[in-house]
Amino acid sequence: MSTALEKGRAWVAEMNPTLEQVLSERYDDLVPEMAETLIEWAYGRHYTRGGVDMKTRQLCTIAALTALGGQTTPQLKINIEHTLAAGASEREIVEIIWQMAVYGGMPAAINGLNAAKEVFQAA
Amino acid sequence: MSTALEKGRAWVAEMNPTLEQVLSERYDDLVPEMAETLIEWAYGRHYTRGGVDMKTRQLCTIAALTALGGQTTPQLKINIEHTLAAGASEREIVEIIWQMAVYGGMPAAINGLNAAKEVFQAA
Amino acid sequence: MSTALEKGRAWVAEMNPTLEQVLSERYDDLVPEMAETLIEWAYGRHYTRGGVDMKTRQLCTIAALTALGGQTTPQLKINIEHTLAAGASEREIVEIIWQMAVYGGMPAAINGLNAAKEVFQAA
Amino acid sequence: MSTALEKGRAWVAEMNPTLEQVLSERYDDLVPEMAETLIEWAYGRHYTRGGVDMKTRQLCTIAALTALGGQTTPQLKINIEHTLAAGASEREIVEIIWQMAVYGGMPAAINGLNAAKEVFQAA
Amino acid sequence: MSTALEKGRAWVAEMNPTLEQVLSERYDDLVPEMAETLIEWAYGRHYTRGGVDMKTRQLCTIAALTALGGQTTPQLKINIEHTLAAGASEREIVEIIWQMAVYGGMPAAINGLNAAKEVFQAA
Amino acid sequence: MSTALEKGRAWVAEMNPTLEQVLSERYDDLVPEMAETLIEWAYGRHYTRGGVDMKTRQLCTIAALTALGGQTTPQLKINIEHTLAAGASEREIVEIIWQMAVYGGMPAAINGLNAAKEVFQAA
Repeated sequence: MSTALEKGRAWVAEMNPTLEQVLSERYDDLVPEMAETLIEWAYGRHYTRGGVDMKTRQLCTIAALTALGGQTTPQLKINIEHTLAAGASEREIVEIIWQMAVYGGMPAAINGLNAAKEVFQAA
Repeated sequence: MSTALEKGRAWVAEMNPTLEQVLSERYDDLVPEMAETLIEWAYGRHYTRGGVDMKTRQLCTIAALTALGGQTTPQLKINIEHTLAAGASEREIVEIIWQMAVYGGMPAAINGLNAAKEVFQAA
Repeated sequence: MSTALEKGRAWVAEMNPTLEQVLSERYDDLVPEMAETLIEWAYGRHYTRGGVDMKTRQLCTIAALTALGGQTTPQLKINIEHTLAAGASEREIVEIIWQMAVYGGMPAAINGLNAAKEVFQAA
Repeated sequence: MSTALEKGRAWVAEMNPTLEQVLSERYDDLVPEMAETLIEWAYGRHYTRGGVDMKTRQLCTIAALTALGGQTTPQLKINIEHTLAAGASEREIVEIIWQMAVYGGMPAAINGLNAAKEVFQAA
Repeated sequence: MSTALEKGRAWVAEMNPTLEQVLSERYDDLVPEMAETLIEWAYGRHYTRGGVDMKTRQLCTIAALTALGGQTTPQLKINIEHTLAAGASEREIVEIIWQMAVYGGMPAAINGLNAAKEVFQAA
Repeated sequence: MSTALEKGRAWVAEMNPTLEQVLSERYDDLVPEMAETLIEWAYGRHYTRGGVDMKTRQLCTIAALTALGGQTTPQLKINIEHTLAAGASEREIVEIIWQMAVYGGMPAAINGLNAAKEVFQAA
């Protein structure tokens, strides 16, 4: 097993313990090794690099997914959960989403706020 | 004068003191009040809201401008300068840019790294 | 109160009288001052600038929201209502949406036509 | 009748025989000649040009619609059907969708896989 | 020859008489019939449809190309020229570009203003 | 060393033998392990998966990078070279680029054709 995959699995074990299994059951029949590839790449090769604390990395992901517009809503919601798990407050999350009105336009920011409301209300 | 405009001007005075004048000379003939509108909106209504520290807000802006792709390179460069001025290290900036490969794709991340290199080398 | 906020409120009073209240009830708990910021910026600082009549400004907004793709559908629908309120016909609105096939691609145009059909049928 | 329109209609007759009628009933009242314009342009002027076989053209369309993100999901689904009709296997389609994680980011690829699952399960 | 191609050529004869020849010399060796396809589609099938006057259609194109971001700068510049030819003033063009800050974000609007400045200064 | 990294390096050895070294010299000081991460992810985890031949995978990459618009021009050019190396003809490449007018809009397709012309003329 690669070190990157090991590091990614360690991250996931802490932040979202069922993630690899959920992905594997949903996608691996269709796309062999999809789950381990995603864990290795996103978490083993990025989130665990160090140099920036996890809460800041997660808020930056929120920023990007908001600015990219409403088409990434499912991923934005999962990352709002990860960002809460990394210690951010609801207030910090919506501040960053709202700031994106400057860079991605008002519709992107409003779609992001709506996603956050849904996550907070379901919690 | 609106409070938002006042707050924006106070932010700009600290982070980039010539910004309003540069914008005004470049755009106000063409688009009356462009400079004060931008200061009021981006800085008076967003960066100065509180709830998130300035360094984190700036890193989130880096994330968004990278994920949006190479078309925002001029704005990415200015914000890399603002992010350094807000106390981030070069390392923190490139970590966030590189993380965007996961969300905006590899080309967006590489274009972002190239913009950062140009800013760091010109400093 | 800023002049821009006053001008924005005057615009909203005519085009969509409950807009600030709706936004405020939906978002201000989460993001303090969201509603007045949006009114000040979008309507006080843009739609009320003059130089272009309101119907043309609204048709240009339809063009942009269509070209940006289906992720801005909720905002496209609200702006289709504003564009009708500004005196445009249904025909003018769909002509502009369809023209966007050239600039944003066929899927964006078709998604825009579907949004228009839903608004027209609900009216 | 233009040659391009004739060529487009011949393509559609083979790949999706009811397409022009479906489009016409849905859109032509609103946007006169929408259906024939789409057939002429997309199929008469592009898919029937030659130089590249139909299966490869269709897989390239899958790639583009995935990379453009979730907002083109309805068009992605129709094109997954056309790509199966052009002789591609389910495996080939999901391989191309998953590859788009490199260029359009992970959320775009995952949204694409979800669209493919829905089409395959409905078949 | 198709009616759409004839109508497109008539439009081009008035607005930009050398366009088809320029496109043909630049692209037809590489992509046979590219020039006539573009004229037929963009101008024969869209700009000449009627229902909206040419100046409004052109301003809507400016809106879309600005909101789509800096990657369409060459096409934005050509369309700024077409929009002036259709009777719009420089002021009207920059008003629409600046309005796009609300929908496409501030970087998109600033890139659009820079494109307009270059066109106006070269005129 | 991970299997994915090994597989990626084998691919690169054949298609673009200096790629890892070029990336490493350009980026690894700034972003440690950037080069090996890119090789592992893009080539070890995607291009070498099998199920689709390399020429088709490369043409699909051309499609995506064209549809994403001019901001990915540097990556489009490198991939046009890889696509020629995978056995595609210039004609096949421009056919796919031009087809993207339907999905990414006319400006994206024209920017893509311009990139292809530059690569072909430099060869």
